[in-house]
Amino acid sequence: MPLIGKMLIAQGGGPTAVINESLVGVIKEARRNPNVTHIYGALHGIQGIAEEDFVDLAYETEGNLECIAKTPGSILLSTRVKPDEAYLMRMFEVMRHHNIRYFLYIGGNDSAETVRIIKEFAQREDYDLMAVHIPKTIDNDLRENDHSPGFGSAARYVLQAFRGVEKDNMAMGGIYIGIIMGRHAGFLTAAAALAQQSEDEGPHLIYVPEIPFKLEKFLDDVERVYKKFGRCTIAVSEGIEDEKGNPVISQLVEDEVDSHGNVQLSGNGLLGDMLAEAIKKRLNISRVRADTFGYLQRSFLGVRSDVDAKEAREVGEVGAKLAFKGLSGSVVMRRIPPYRVYYELVPIEKVARYSKSMPREFMNKEGNFVSEEFIQYARPLVGNDIPEIAVLRSPPIPKTFLVKHGEDVE
Amino acid sequence: MPLIGKMLIAQGGGPTAVINESLVGVIKEARRNPNVTHIYGALHGIQGIAEEDFVDLAYETEGNLECIAKTPGSILLSTRVKPDEAYLMRMFEVMRHHNIRYFLYIGGNDSAETVRIIKEFAQREDYDLMAVHIPKTIDNDLRENDHSPGFGSAARYVLQAFRGVEKDNMAMGGIYIGIIMGRHAGFLTAAAALAQQSEDEGPHLIYVPEIPFKLEKFLDDVERVYKKFGRCTIAVSEGIEDEKGNPVISQLVEDEVDSHGNVQLSGNGLLGDMLAEAIKKRLNISRVRADTFGYLQRSFLGVRSDVDAKEAREVGEVGAKLAFKGLSGSVVMRRIPPYRVYYELVPIEKVARYSKSMPREFMNKEGNFVSEEFIQYARPLVGNDIPEIAVLRSPPIPKTFLVKHGEDVE
Repeated sequence: MPLIGKMLIAQGGGPTAVINESLVGVIKEARRNPNVTHIYGALHGIQGIAEEDFVDLAYETEGNLECIAKTPGSILLSTRVKPDEAYLMRMFEVMRHHNIRYFLYIGGNDSAETVRIIKEFAQREDYDLMAVHIPKTIDNDLRENDHSPGFGSAARYVLQAFRGVEKDNMAMGGIYIGIIMGRHAGFLTAAAALAQQSEDEGPHLIYVPEIPFKLEKFLDDVERVYKKFGRCTIAVSEGIEDEKGNPVISQLVEDEVDSHGNVQLSGNGLLGDMLAEAIKKRLNISRVRADTFGYLQRSFLGVRSDVDAKEAREVGEVGAKLAFKGLSGSVVMRRIPPYRVYYELVPIEKVARYSKSMPREFMNKEGNFVSEEFIQYARPLVGNDIPEIAVLRSPPIPKTFLVKHGEDVE
Repeated sequence: MPLIGKMLIAQGGGPTAVINESLVGVIKEARRNPNVTHIYGALHGIQGIAEEDFVDLAYETEGNLECIAKTPGSILLSTRVKPDEAYLMRMFEVMRHHNIRYFLYIGGNDSAETVRIIKEFAQREDYDLMAVHIPKTIDNDLRENDHSPGFGSAARYVLQAFRGVEKDNMAMGGIYIGIIMGRHAGFLTAAAALAQQSEDEGPHLIYVPEIPFKLEKFLDDVERVYKKFGRCTIAVSEGIEDEKGNPVISQLVEDEVDSHGNVQLSGNGLLGDMLAEAIKKRLNISRVRADTFGYLQRSFLGVRSDVDAKEAREVGEVGAKLAFKGLSGSVVMRRIPPYRVYYELVPIEKVARYSKSMPREFMNKEGNFVSEEFIQYARPLVGNDIPEIAVLRSPPIPKTFLVKHGEDVE
């Protein structure tokens, strides 16, 4: 017997470009289900539950829902709160009062952990609640998932950024470093490699958190590329760690730690500036530039992977279908090669709390660029109709002036 | 009598997303003109002339030219070299040897100055050379021009960035600072205002180089907005100056100066980090994030203003037409309100060397946001089909739990 009651949806953790696709997938599926009496949204994730801060999503027009789906950021607002015992008790009093029977939470591994705790608490309290976690993260580090909604669009932003900036760096000559998000997983930084249309084009070097970062090796790599091409374009993960496993950036900043124990890595330019300085000093190259891509890579409006957007919609839709069937857990994405996606529900413990790293075989042996396996893995995720960049194919004009005057012709 | 000879084209200064549109506009016009015997491209701007580093652009296919037009960065590569007497002498020896009779140079005010010097030298040497400057700059600071090719696309990038990041900042709560390019002119930073679809949406505050920056006033502004909306999204120009006219950032970095005497402002995150620290300390707000937009705003692939792209093509085409008529000077863009564009040739001195600032009336009286005049001015430049962001319009659910338990309902 399916439960009759209200559905509550919320969003947790850092937003993505397509997290609202999942929200709209859930809402539209809920609208089709007669057992769902009301569709509530909790504002600021589980904070909205504890504070009884709900909105009635029934009032959204179909047209506005489709616009919401295309809007970056978590439209229901987000939170990084982790509930303790007292907080959970309070949340359940509020949910019981409102007869919430379906709870869908869109987020990463921290949000999955929250779903796990809530489901466990519900069982202990003997409260019938279907709790389903809908995956999202630009870091692509959710366990059990082939890839995560949100990653493909962020990866596409990184791809388009590197294709463009490589042409800029080529025109000006010099070293360019782009610092990419990724606390422990290098997937997004690795995605910069997809920018390459021919092997002399940047990014020429890629550094990820999974491979210990050695400054001397890095400087050697940069020097070698610079000597070969007269420029060097580099993608570096914000989360790169030294050989002892300490984030390189944590040696540069006062720590700001969130409630899940994560150090703030984004929102400052120190790592890029430090690496640029090191290159200038060691290699005596004056034009060295570093950009920290920051929040734009997860929130930039209008650059999305169509594949990612479609899948983000589907994980929401599928998650709602499963909850309405009386199931709880985490929706995960599987791939059948070369590229077809299936959704499954797995026990929430399998996704919650811990994250996964990028497999070693996605990087080359030297650890300073991706492997062909990574390219095969990532290429379908960034979607279709990706803009191309041109090269000049004009032949050089013979240097007849130099020859006539007996000057050196390189 | 029109001169029969070779045409030489080159690109100078920082690239834009549409600088190659102008190049293609020139090439296609040259292909149609029987007096042009050859179409040469000089690599790395005027460096390519001194070093006899030319390519034969006749070999480019029409298809590749159209792809080049859409490629960011200067495809002929760029330079910041400023020619002295010996350098000019050398350039003329090479040009004379190759019978270059038409010289088109795409660039900003420094490149216009180079064209002025070259034309002057040609007259002194009694060498028949038509020299035309084709405008480009994301800074939008070229004199005589209503606006400059390259600005509209960079402004569109800033617009889409702020629309997205405002939603991200709204979801997470806190202060967000975006540092935008602009050495002396605030146009590009001001363009962030175009992101707003309703007045509560960010950016809430805008700071430009034209108005002296006072840290205390800035912190007061931020505090006021934060108290009102629970968040604050801010656009700050990299070139903001204190009351003595010193760049705020020059107090933070060791200077790197190029051959035109310009201090390096981009390519590091110091200004954003400094402002974020000041806010954290004074206002005791923990979540303060700063992104320095850096090179992506002028080179990001796939985000362009269709209006800007069309005009960039046209300035190239018109510049070539005028040169082939035997004229020299700088092509400028005029506007007849509300929005129709005309091109004119003006004496090169009128555009060369000096740049223009944003008119005071483009900012509000307080100097912390744009005026309606600026919006009217800038809106047509960012082009059509700009993605929109949605807001949630769902009504709040009555807080019956809180009421029942006699708790405060804000």
